[in-house]
Amino acid sequence: MKALVFHGPRDIRFENYADPELRTPNSAILKVSNCSICGSDLHMYHGAHIGNKEYGADSETFCTGHEFIGEVVEAGPNVHAFKTGDKVLAAGGTGCGSCPACLTGGPGNCAVSTAFGIGPTLQGGQAEYVCVPNADATLMSMDGLTDEQALLLTDGMATAYFGLTRAEPKPGGTVAVVGLGPIGLMGVELAFALGAAKVFAIDPVESRRAMAEKLGAITLAPGADLVPRVRDMTSGKGVESVFEASGASGAIASVLPLTARRGNASFIGIPEPDDALPMPLIMFKNITVRGGICDVQNMWPHLVPLVQQGRITAPDLFSHDFNLSQGPEAYSLFDSRDEGVLKINMTVG
Amino acid sequence: MKALVFHGPRDIRFENYADPELRTPNSAILKVSNCSICGSDLHMYHGAHIGNKEYGADSETFCTGHEFIGEVVEAGPNVHAFKTGDKVLAAGGTGCGSCPACLTGGPGNCAVSTAFGIGPTLQGGQAEYVCVPNADATLMSMDGLTDEQALLLTDGMATAYFGLTRAEPKPGGTVAVVGLGPIGLMGVELAFALGAAKVFAIDPVESRRAMAEKLGAITLAPGADLVPRVRDMTSGKGVESVFEASGASGAIASVLPLTARRGNASFIGIPEPDDALPMPLIMFKNITVRGGICDVQNMWPHLVPLVQQGRITAPDLFSHDFNLSQGPEAYSLFDSRDEGVLKINMTVG
Amino acid sequence: MKALVFHGPRDIRFENYADPELRTPNSAILKVSNCSICGSDLHMYHGAHIGNKEYGADSETFCTGHEFIGEVVEAGPNVHAFKTGDKVLAAGGTGCGSCPACLTGGPGNCAVSTAFGIGPTLQGGQAEYVCVPNADATLMSMDGLTDEQALLLTDGMATAYFGLTRAEPKPGGTVAVVGLGPIGLMGVELAFALGAAKVFAIDPVESRRAMAEKLGAITLAPGADLVPRVRDMTSGKGVESVFEASGASGAIASVLPLTARRGNASFIGIPEPDDALPMPLIMFKNITVRGGICDVQNMWPHLVPLVQQGRITAPDLFSHDFNLSQGPEAYSLFDSRDEGVLKINMTVG
Amino acid sequence: MKALVFHGPRDIRFENYADPELRTPNSAILKVSNCSICGSDLHMYHGAHIGNKEYGADSETFCTGHEFIGEVVEAGPNVHAFKTGDKVLAAGGTGCGSCPACLTGGPGNCAVSTAFGIGPTLQGGQAEYVCVPNADATLMSMDGLTDEQALLLTDGMATAYFGLTRAEPKPGGTVAVVGLGPIGLMGVELAFALGAAKVFAIDPVESRRAMAEKLGAITLAPGADLVPRVRDMTSGKGVESVFEASGASGAIASVLPLTARRGNASFIGIPEPDDALPMPLIMFKNITVRGGICDVQNMWPHLVPLVQQGRITAPDLFSHDFNLSQGPEAYSLFDSRDEGVLKINMTVG
Repeated sequence: MKALVFHGPRDIRFENYADPELRTPNSAILKVSNCSICGSDLHMYHGAHIGNKEYGADSETFCTGHEFIGEVVEAGPNVHAFKTGDKVLAAGGTGCGSCPACLTGGPGNCAVSTAFGIGPTLQGGQAEYVCVPNADATLMSMDGLTDEQALLLTDGMATAYFGLTRAEPKPGGTVAVVGLGPIGLMGVELAFALGAAKVFAIDPVESRRAMAEKLGAITLAPGADLVPRVRDMTSGKGVESVFEASGASGAIASVLPLTARRGNASFIGIPEPDDALPMPLIMFKNITVRGGICDVQNMWPHLVPLVQQGRITAPDLFSHDFNLSQGPEAYSLFDSRDEGVLKINMTVG
Repeated sequence: MKALVFHGPRDIRFENYADPELRTPNSAILKVSNCSICGSDLHMYHGAHIGNKEYGADSETFCTGHEFIGEVVEAGPNVHAFKTGDKVLAAGGTGCGSCPACLTGGPGNCAVSTAFGIGPTLQGGQAEYVCVPNADATLMSMDGLTDEQALLLTDGMATAYFGLTRAEPKPGGTVAVVGLGPIGLMGVELAFALGAAKVFAIDPVESRRAMAEKLGAITLAPGADLVPRVRDMTSGKGVESVFEASGASGAIASVLPLTARRGNASFIGIPEPDDALPMPLIMFKNITVRGGICDVQNMWPHLVPLVQQGRITAPDLFSHDFNLSQGPEAYSLFDSRDEGVLKINMTVG
Repeated sequence: MKALVFHGPRDIRFENYADPELRTPNSAILKVSNCSICGSDLHMYHGAHIGNKEYGADSETFCTGHEFIGEVVEAGPNVHAFKTGDKVLAAGGTGCGSCPACLTGGPGNCAVSTAFGIGPTLQGGQAEYVCVPNADATLMSMDGLTDEQALLLTDGMATAYFGLTRAEPKPGGTVAVVGLGPIGLMGVELAFALGAAKVFAIDPVESRRAMAEKLGAITLAPGADLVPRVRDMTSGKGVESVFEASGASGAIASVLPLTARRGNASFIGIPEPDDALPMPLIMFKNITVRGGICDVQNMWPHLVPLVQQGRITAPDLFSHDFNLSQGPEAYSLFDSRDEGVLKINMTVG
Repeated sequence: MKALVFHGPRDIRFENYADPELRTPNSAILKVSNCSICGSDLHMYHGAHIGNKEYGADSETFCTGHEFIGEVVEAGPNVHAFKTGDKVLAAGGTGCGSCPACLTGGPGNCAVSTAFGIGPTLQGGQAEYVCVPNADATLMSMDGLTDEQALLLTDGMATAYFGLTRAEPKPGGTVAVVGLGPIGLMGVELAFALGAAKVFAIDPVESRRAMAEKLGAITLAPGADLVPRVRDMTSGKGVESVFEASGASGAIASVLPLTARRGNASFIGIPEPDDALPMPLIMFKNITVRGGICDVQNMWPHLVPLVQQGRITAPDLFSHDFNLSQGPEAYSLFDSRDEGVLKINMTVG
């Protein structure tokens, strides 16, 4: 088959790769119709560590990509919820599906849980075909979803929901979203959908702030006056729930000063090795801080119905369309951090 | 002053009554501008028990009404948050404001907490003037609120929020609201505002269902096919969060059959003495049931910002306008349970 | 093999039955070493409904029993956590282990989740051998546990923990346990282990009250003065967390009068068809009521360490020892509800 | 009266000071019988900042101390729960008792909430007399409590409970307490009282570890092998709930490496200005971090019953007895951080 294959930092190639085979009886093979690139893919693209993985020029090659949708073309004998021909989206990562952790708490608790396409352990879906282990728990029917919505549900929207809700937004409460990439913009929309009264949306890029403003947010650019301005608009209190959606060091540093006493701050971006949070602010403001990687599957029961019923629309997040064969250019464009680049939808075949 | 005065069942008169005086240093006197009638006022109107109170022909007279807004005309020396001239709304009931329960948990925990206007202990606000004890905790500024919104925040919208949230609606989840009076209709709007994906709104009256439908709900009339129809629309599961907003015996009886396994059912209507919930349904469906009277003040931090920011509009709930002098007719009309009667706004003076 | 076989109400026989075979690749066969009888087994013994099952004289025969421990003698190819020779205990029921519900939420969410030994769908473990489907999620190692502790962890102690915690006991709070059979007695011990300050233990049988008293509880017999006495010992408030552990109609009826305002009441006993809870008490006391069947597996992460570390001892709950061949007599004795009968430990082979 | 008076860093004198007078109608005057010194007093003693307060040689003098018990000798007209002659303990800080924040959420939410004895705003109780504002919410009856228990309930035991519970210990779970001063030792006892299965108690001082061991903890000294040893004793997982009770920089740094994936870390010690928590650990281990100052009053409903019922004993925490006149020596000894110094009980008069 044809696939995007990682050969080393900034060296992703569109080339032939061995067709996937069913790894386990609970696996399914998908014929991928669309895939997209996630901000976290850039860490690998840059050769940086992700978790305990290191990417160098002599890495074993593997197919990239953890955001993909497609059609089931083969289902193992222990796959019960899906059959050949079903249109499905996949969670960005999964567990084995057969250990006690998987069987009582879901894939995220599995000791061998991993993301697709970040190493040879679990081949990615920026490819014509991909094998999805633990299919019953890793796939979701695309019924009632557009291709774009389904692509967002593979990771980004789930991460936005995870990050936002770990900032414990309250009905009638105040929320700040720091960083207005696709995840931050979905965070803004979700904050209102869950009952926030005021959402502050913070980003240096004007076009992104304009998108947040259309969603109802009060928009602000970072800068020296950010914290006093937000304080003015919150009766001097600061923001109850602050969601950092970028992973940029400057953005991370702005979070605790924005947070109200007894407030909550949530982080989902991959930090730099020496990013740190000042203990005195956590302490004297009685702040709860949460960071973490999202279990995509656990967010679906909340998100899929909201999208199906039209209560979340995630508008205009796909700024570019490519074919998989143009994947290397797509990665390069995405890496440019050009202001106009949000999500890239790659059609396969 | 002039006031509506309770003389016995179905005998409420517009007549002179002694002007209120400051009862405690933490009290304030309001000049009432508007007041409304609550469904729970009808229990007293009918001479029925409310809690441990009994209403007979020989009751001591008292001013009625626990839903009122107005202007502070006198504030005791221990009132710090409000001053003469402030336009305010009052919570439908309050505690003393000076016992340890009030001072650490709010008025609802106070041993002498009571509603306004259900007995001589705490005179009501269907009157030209009313004394509000524990004013700092019982009043809320009307800044950014219309008169109608402020009246709804004295009780009904707070009760809707309380009842709905005790059914634990989940983002993306299913909600049913049984009974589409003003509280039920606000429950429908709030359910969507808090992230419900599907709201089932159930009432025999077509015009009320039409209002719920405009808010986005799936509407249904009660009847033998209610439970199977709802089950069909919930993949056979039933509804995760059911909020009974009427107190009618038939409506109460429909709640647990509608509720999904591991779902939540919440009740806020004053029940009949022999209403009961079948234990086997609670048990075999692992249901959580909650009933209760709302602490209005505790809901305000959620509701007031949602209303001020326009995220809750509570449209068209006031079906009739009267002057306080027409109070007896207003009570009689409200008691008629005529289909077109929702809330009645009485102007004072 | 030899097994206890249900032939109809009060007709359980010790006789030959077909050896179990591996039903699915995720199943394991246990050689049972010990089993016990649960109070809920008596409903079937009496021919009463359990859930949607009916027991009549012409029922298909099946092996009884959902409380059993033993040794793995055969493990299917998809069983990863256990191997031949492992000493294990089994949860009293399980799901399929391969549907999305099982794979993300555990066996209790499975549409075909069922208990062992209440019908031919899932043969019970009062037998020499039993097939345990979904073994990775249904079995637990007996490391660090005595036989008696392991037997209690198959159901009774888990149900006690489930029922108690659904009454939301607070550190420093008051708890009442109504009904001092094995589950109630474990509820008393667990209430203290979780931080209750005062536990009221209520049962008509003196010997059972004596056991609760040894655990630190304040003991009471049911009767007209029960509620006023408890109120006297709780500053007039009633009990914050009430756990009904018997299923007896009189006990069920005593729960809400004992419960404090804003308190929690939890039920785990199988009720009679016409048991019901009075709505006015739920309403005017703002009570939360929960009923339900326990997902045994979900309690293990809490209970197994507490037992292994000696913080829960569950002393003296086994009042009688039998051999499986004496099963019919054991059932008859257990059904006598004799005061001295708590749990019966049946040795197999 | 005689009192300990702050004149500047390390300059606390026993001398005459003006008798307190009732500041507000909701205040009470106590004749102090006993008081103690808190670790946080040393920050002031050293001239360091606390919150927004700075301590220099030219500070206005004030009476020190926020841990004190005594007898009510005068009660303002708005004090309802206490009267002259009552033996009481005081919370270490309080709010005004009359603003809406106090009246609905308790003293901790008050904008002018402050601790006793850290500045002239609220004179401390290391004195013969002290004025306690907002007395109904700030005092607690000593019924059923010893002097030592009452002193611990003014701050330290409440802070231990607060810090421990914000690490979300689970029944059957693992807890680590880092730092075995009085607060840490009470944290160990409380962790077991709330249902922890295993408690790891970490301190460099052997005598303190010995006290923790008597309470049932597994004790460890800090060092390079700390994290691997704890990992070995937790099946490789690390500790679910880690409570840092010292504020020492080295101890703070050890917390996140000890914490399990998806675990909770809680901090209550006053940090150094440049203490910080590494973002990558928070992120890749999905950790929840909480810091904060305790609202003492909110812990009492949990702690007072546990102490009264003998379920928490807080044994042997008072290592030294002094008279108030020896206060300067007591401060000096306490500041020595001598291994044998835990709490100092100062008798007044």
